Amino acid sequence: MLKLYSFGPGANSLKPMLALYEKGLDYEQVQLNPAKFEHHSDWYKAINPRGQVPALWDDGKVVTESTVICEYLEDAHPTAVKLRPDDPFERAEMRVWTKWVDEYFCWCVSTIGWHRYVGKMAQDLSDAEFEEKVANIPVYEQQVKWRRARAGFPQDMLDEEMRKIAVSVKKLDEHLRDNEWLVPGMYTLADICNFAIANGMQYGFAELVNRDDTPGLIRWIEQINARPAVKTMFAEVQREIVHEKKELNV
Amino acid sequence: MLKLYSFGPGANSLKPMLALYEKGLDYEQVQLNPAKFEHHSDWYKAINPRGQVPALWDDGKVVTESTVICEYLEDAHPTAVKLRPDDPFERAEMRVWTKWVDEYFCWCVSTIGWHRYVGKMAQDLSDAEFEEKVANIPVYEQQVKWRRARAGFPQDMLDEEMRKIAVSVKKLDEHLRDNEWLVPGMYTLADICNFAIANGMQYGFAELVNRDDTPGLIRWIEQINARPAVKTMFAEVQREIVHEKKELNV
Repeated sequence: MLKLYSFGPGANSLKPMLALYEKGLDYEQVQLNPAKFEHHSDWYKAINPRGQVPALWDDGKVVTESTVICEYLEDAHPTAVKLRPDDPFERAEMRVWTKWVDEYFCWCVSTIGWHRYVGKMAQDLSDAEFEEKVANIPVYEQQVKWRRARAGFPQDMLDEEMRKIAVSVKKLDEHLRDNEWLVPGMYTLADICNFAIANGMQYGFAELVNRDDTPGLIRWIEQINARPAVKTMFAEVQREIVHEKKELNV
Repeated sequence: MLKLYSFGPGANSLKPMLALYEKGLDYEQVQLNPAKFEHHSDWYKAINPRGQVPALWDDGKVVTESTVICEYLEDAHPTAVKLRPDDPFERAEMRVWTKWVDEYFCWCVSTIGWHRYVGKMAQDLSDAEFEEKVANIPVYEQQVKWRRARAGFPQDMLDEEMRKIAVSVKKLDEHLRDNEWLVPGMYTLADICNFAIANGMQYGFAELVNRDDTPGLIRWIEQINARPAVKTMFAEVQREIVHEKKELNV
């Protein structure tokens, strides 16, 4: 019996959710509401002490970190649809891409998402309410990020993150102009983990991600959105909190 | 036939080198000299376009990123000594630790190492020599890091990195007081990848890593150093450039 704790089909939560749908594995959906800070509540910190989603519960054991969960599903369900190559070299290629999302691509997109959406959420609270929320956040760096979002991220930080987003988008597009998938020849966790961050950028970052400037990236985003598992997932799972649905990319 | 391109047995280069020794795999040692900027030379960028070590050459194919190389060795040599658990959940636990080194622990230690040792190397060059070196660095963020090292890292950045180092050391120590290895019951890539960064901190960061404050971490560092493969590796492989051997942790 599997349970996925998530914020719904976007950003890091989307990675294991899409892997579960692609693999055809049944699981219970537990959606947390970020606007209610449910991920920092005691009941959830008993599941993931870091107070972060996604987390996968598997018969009493808990796996955290979105990319680790995806690999776990490959290891634990070897007879389901494969999203990881068998060949060791192709598997390494896949991991260079999933590592890059986690260490570079997701952070710059995340900061802009926080600037656009989380800042407002934090500013709507009174000082006392905000401090009470922050006190419940177990990871210090996340406390800092909430404070920055409330105060307003410094412009030089936003500029730097936008620069990194432009670099990221170009890197993906260049590869995808010549290759159907990130690892040549197979739809893998590299695609799923990058799609989780890139999908929606054609709306929220349309000045960078569009048919003229990044045709390879747009083709790949559309191709993944057209997959049966992806269509089923988006039809079945709604994000509980959506500020501006098409632009949300937190 | 395997070849490992590295800076020798320290920091990220140490991860795959130690995995190769523990697994008993023969390989050719190719050591690059960071003080000569050999990793930014054209011949090396033909091997790894990002101009970073380590890189593993395996019969014409090149695997990059230290942690990815370690997992590659497990995948490609399944009959050699195992450094990765078979159980999917334990494997996920291992990956949470290797991911944490790559995303958190290694960066704070690296910045202080650059501040202490690389800054001097950069300052010894003339402006023209320095600009010529920087122009050869393919990753923009590394260019920025070299410029910061030459100018001197801002004190608030150094303070923040030292804070993160203290957090990291405490996290490792708390776990290792109650557990022989990071993944309970087995010496894995989690130990190797964390040891690669932690070893030497008992000298270079003695105010934080010592027998009184971090007995679990010290016990684990000593236990790994006492392993036959580790002793053989350090005896056979010397780092070409060593400013202050005991403290070097770049």
